[in-house]
Amino acid sequence: MTARKILLIGIGAGDPGHLTIQAVEALRRTDVFFVLDKGEVKQELVDLRQHILDTYVPECRVVTGRDPERDRGAEAYVEAVDDWRRRRADVCEGMIRAELADGGTGAFLVWGDPTLYDSTLAIVEDLRLRDGLDLEIEVIPGISSVSALVARHQVSLTQVSKPVQVTTGRRLAKAWPDDVDDLVVMLDGQTAFTEHLGTGATIYWGAYLGTPDELLISGPLDEVADEIVKVRAEARERKGWIMDTYLLRR
Amino acid sequence: MTARKILLIGIGAGDPGHLTIQAVEALRRTDVFFVLDKGEVKQELVDLRQHILDTYVPECRVVTGRDPERDRGAEAYVEAVDDWRRRRADVCEGMIRAELADGGTGAFLVWGDPTLYDSTLAIVEDLRLRDGLDLEIEVIPGISSVSALVARHQVSLTQVSKPVQVTTGRRLAKAWPDDVDDLVVMLDGQTAFTEHLGTGATIYWGAYLGTPDELLISGPLDEVADEIVKVRAEARERKGWIMDTYLLRR
Ligand SMILES: C[S@@+](CC[C@H](N)C(=O)[O-])C[C@H]1O[C@@H](n2cnc3c(N)ncnc32)[C@H](O)[C@@H]1O
Ligand SMILES: C[S@@+](CC[C@H](N)C(=O)[O-])C[C@H]1O[C@@H](n2cnc3c(N)ncnc32)[C@H](O)[C@@H]1O
Repeated sequence: MTARKILLIGIGAGDPGHLTIQAVEALRRTDVFFVLDKGEVKQELVDLRQHILDTYVPECRVVTGRDPERDRGAEAYVEAVDDWRRRRADVCEGMIRAELADGGTGAFLVWGDPTLYDSTLAIVEDLRLRDGLDLEIEVIPGISSVSALVARHQVSLTQVSKPVQVTTGRRLAKAWPDDVDDLVVMLDGQTAFTEHLGTGATIYWGAYLGTPDELLISGPLDEVADEIVKVRAEARERKGWIMDTYLLRR
Repeated sequence: MTARKILLIGIGAGDPGHLTIQAVEALRRTDVFFVLDKGEVKQELVDLRQHILDTYVPECRVVTGRDPERDRGAEAYVEAVDDWRRRRADVCEGMIRAELADGGTGAFLVWGDPTLYDSTLAIVEDLRLRDGLDLEIEVIPGISSVSALVARHQVSLTQVSKPVQVTTGRRLAKAWPDDVDDLVVMLDGQTAFTEHLGTGATIYWGAYLGTPDELLISGPLDEVADEIVKVRAEARERKGWIMDTYLLRR
């Protein structure tokens, strides 16, 4: 039995131009693309994926699996995510066994950078341990929404010899972490920056980065927080979903 | 007077395949490339830059300025860096005024991602404030050495709903920051991880990432620290320089 090869290809955070030369080469050596259909409202995400395939591998084979429901009401967040991952891994296992020959190359297209708050890598690591699935994994890095954010704001992620922390809205809502003045916040459904007015921070906020709907707002947090809350709510209402990230600099 | 356009193009962290489609397009609309000649021992870095230009814009115009010396003995690190930046900005100002016409497009190729521990953005921001230099800036994100590191180790930068901090060797040598179990360490000339034996951390270390000389070592810190110190010293001796980064996970 020869190993099956699984590529995790970072496709960037919204702009098809984020794709790397390495990623294009990876697309071209893929025999079959695996997609977990999330029944997404986020049509743009589906469209970007399709646009990339149409551009670089128009004749490609795509196999779609049904993404299991995630228990969003669960109290134990990490356990719920773990369980969801396991069920997603089951679906992927089924697709790989049925659709990818030994020695063949399958790929998952991953939003942004595959190593930043994404579960695909954990899923394939899980699969690797399963009986009779001999998988060889390769990760192709991608432009993350963090890189996209600061590039668009033309601001450095790091200040000279200082650290920067990447964290979640959930955590920022609780506290500004100690000993670090620069924070990148992701996965924030609750506009947690509003908990940190009066700290003298500056915010660089971006939504739908890299897409035609991109929104950018920056300035002293106290002055622009209301505007961001308003613009964010309106955009979310209009499009049915939002994806935003920001850098807070104290 | 029409503004001059200045592009900061992230070229990735060592592998020519890290270049994005967007970066290739940016190379192609550049009239003149500016280079600060550091008299580098790091021949590979110069070679990668040249390889990229030869591949995508073989007929391009390159203007080279002499990089001012940096006062590495200085006690006041941040001030020394600031002063050095100002002097580098002076050199860049001279090149831009002399070699880039109004309305023209100049570019700097920046290693990795231009927003991560790199001074080019600060330099062009400084230039922007200078008399009679009307500059329009655009930053093209690049694959950072951080993304390259974790992709090669096939490990996620972030754990579910947890933060990750990017910091320097200088800082890690002083202390492991509070409230964060995942650290990416850059600019570490002193193997600061050796200060954190016995913490139960795992290390994912990489040097010359993306290049043919790439080195990767990972494992429990207590078990592999000595090996990393040894391999690092040998490689540095052999090549005359080293560039390494690591993820520490506690
Ligand atoms: C599940 S994480 C995936 C991150 C992705 N792997 C990356 O590298 O950007 C999703 C979060 O990324 C951020 N994000 C992703 N794409 C974005 C975009 N185009 N604009 C703004 N934020 C984005 C948001 O904070 C969102 O909640
Ligand atoms: C001045 S910083 C520039 C970082 C760059 N802008 C980036 O995005 O990777 C230089 C530091 O980046 C890291 N680095 C850059 N390229 C690397 C590579 N190819 N392999 C390992 N580390 C690298 C090292 O920690 C080095 O000390």
